[in-house]
Amino acid sequence: MSVVIAGGAGFIGCHLTRHFLENGQYVLVIDNLCRGQESFINNLPGKERLQFVKTNIQDVQRTVEVLGEFHAMHPVDVVWHMAANSDIPAGIADATVDLNDTFMTTHALLEAMKLHDIKKVAFASSSAVYGDHGPQTELCEATGPFMPISNYGAMKLASEAAISAAAESFLEQAWLFRFPNVVGIPATHGVLVDFIRKLKATPSELAVLGNGTQQKAYVHVSELVEAMLWIVSHTSSSRNCYNIGPKDAGVSVRQIAEDVVSSVAPSAEINYGSECRGWVGDVPRFKYSITKLEQLGFTPSLTSRQAVQRAIKEIALQEKVQCANL
Amino acid sequence: MSVVIAGGAGFIGCHLTRHFLENGQYVLVIDNLCRGQESFINNLPGKERLQFVKTNIQDVQRTVEVLGEFHAMHPVDVVWHMAANSDIPAGIADATVDLNDTFMTTHALLEAMKLHDIKKVAFASSSAVYGDHGPQTELCEATGPFMPISNYGAMKLASEAAISAAAESFLEQAWLFRFPNVVGIPATHGVLVDFIRKLKATPSELAVLGNGTQQKAYVHVSELVEAMLWIVSHTSSSRNCYNIGPKDAGVSVRQIAEDVVSSVAPSAEINYGSECRGWVGDVPRFKYSITKLEQLGFTPSLTSRQAVQRAIKEIALQEKVQCANL
Repeated sequence: MSVVIAGGAGFIGCHLTRHFLENGQYVLVIDNLCRGQESFINNLPGKERLQFVKTNIQDVQRTVEVLGEFHAMHPVDVVWHMAANSDIPAGIADATVDLNDTFMTTHALLEAMKLHDIKKVAFASSSAVYGDHGPQTELCEATGPFMPISNYGAMKLASEAAISAAAESFLEQAWLFRFPNVVGIPATHGVLVDFIRKLKATPSELAVLGNGTQQKAYVHVSELVEAMLWIVSHTSSSRNCYNIGPKDAGVSVRQIAEDVVSSVAPSAEINYGSECRGWVGDVPRFKYSITKLEQLGFTPSLTSRQAVQRAIKEIALQEKVQCANL
Repeated sequence: MSVVIAGGAGFIGCHLTRHFLENGQYVLVIDNLCRGQESFINNLPGKERLQFVKTNIQDVQRTVEVLGEFHAMHPVDVVWHMAANSDIPAGIADATVDLNDTFMTTHALLEAMKLHDIKKVAFASSSAVYGDHGPQTELCEATGPFMPISNYGAMKLASEAAISAAAESFLEQAWLFRFPNVVGIPATHGVLVDFIRKLKATPSELAVLGNGTQQKAYVHVSELVEAMLWIVSHTSSSRNCYNIGPKDAGVSVRQIAEDVVSSVAPSAEINYGSECRGWVGDVPRFKYSITKLEQLGFTPSLTSRQAVQRAIKEIALQEKVQCANL
């Protein structure tokens, strides 16, 4: 059976693209290359089984066409929906960003799947659907109420909702993966890239948004992909919703700043802001339960800090920055 | 201060329109009259303070214009968003129905409010956001996970999510009211109107979708409006989410069918279907907690059955059907 990967040229999607090609499957990648890059996927082993179409997935008619043509040649088992806006502040400034790139892509994919009778979808959701429950509440999949504080989280939740409704009518199976922060390469955005690029430009100083006390759970993209594949192959319910993350309560922005500095610019001075949030829509600190994932038999091996440290080295190499600990 | 009522010519909205006009306020009603009717609002006391604009609220540009013009004359305090698709099966058949009428209306209103610096929104959400948790789980506002089984519920949840995110950035206050089934007049749709119209056409028989065991909580529109106004005037948080409903666990479709028959066609034979759901997306039975509402000081006086019985009489009159118990 073949797969479709929406956003398959992006940071996380390209790892799935590699996996399914290595696995011998036919893969259709649709991506608008807004953040993804063709270079992330155009030289992978098995590339003769890869079809890449650059398109805005929210264009229902075009997505229906593209999926239909591929599905006629290579019957599709699962649509992996990894396409989304990933710039939270951009989505706060302009609500149409997350609306179009995150939610309307979900709507268009579901419309195309319904029309072509494709019955399984795996969706990259987010811890941001929960909103800010404070640092004491352990967020498990059943934690409510969902009160997202960013349009990023809101449109991830809207997508979950639309998929959940589709699972009642025409879908056979749906997987909702709630990601924490994900690090690794090819890095396109996020705190590690920001820090490393800032230090590459000005090795003497690192300005940090917020006071550095924000603490978050991080997972390395390699373990995230393993976890998603594990969940898909070990679940049989129609709706399957899983938090994916490390076992720990996360690592602080201060720790991350220190780890980045010690790796790539040991003499840099770190300057913090005064706010406890980096930006509007940023959840400053949360506890994340992965008990459900562990009960399914999967436990991530890296801690948040280990994931971050591994990613720092990878990103330094990607950005061609000398890395003391490499 | 003035108010905007999106969907203010509809079944629930027109009661709010009446209330605010009676209260001496200026009211802008925007409504596409898809289910609402101008006759519901065009002869109310205080009508000289009513401005009505027929428009598709999801048209962002038009909604921005219409709100802007009214707001310039009559500064708006609260936007009441009561516009939505209310036909659940129609939304299952075609996902664009709830997308456009329920969610994109929310998006457009938020865009207009942000632009015009209007900072309070009150939204008609639904018990359908919860999905089907089975008859044992008492649904309170914090019950998760939200796994809606209809696009109706999904797009109500998507709207809640977008409003929740806006409450973090530009809104001062938001109210999310989770309605159960609402009955009363002017009735435009729903089980009571269906039954009464069927019996008016064929007084000898009533065909019921489903086996009649579906049991639901009903609130009378008069008490619903009282509850919403109570909540708005007794809360000060930025996000305020409340279940509104009766204290009881609801009334069965069988009971409703019997009450309708005994009122309007005592000799009719009732024929049930075999399914425990009336249609895909129908939650067959749920328990609804209104503890949070009661703690705020509001307790509905009618039971589900009393609300239904009162509405049967009102709708029989509306539909010009002789009512034995009138």
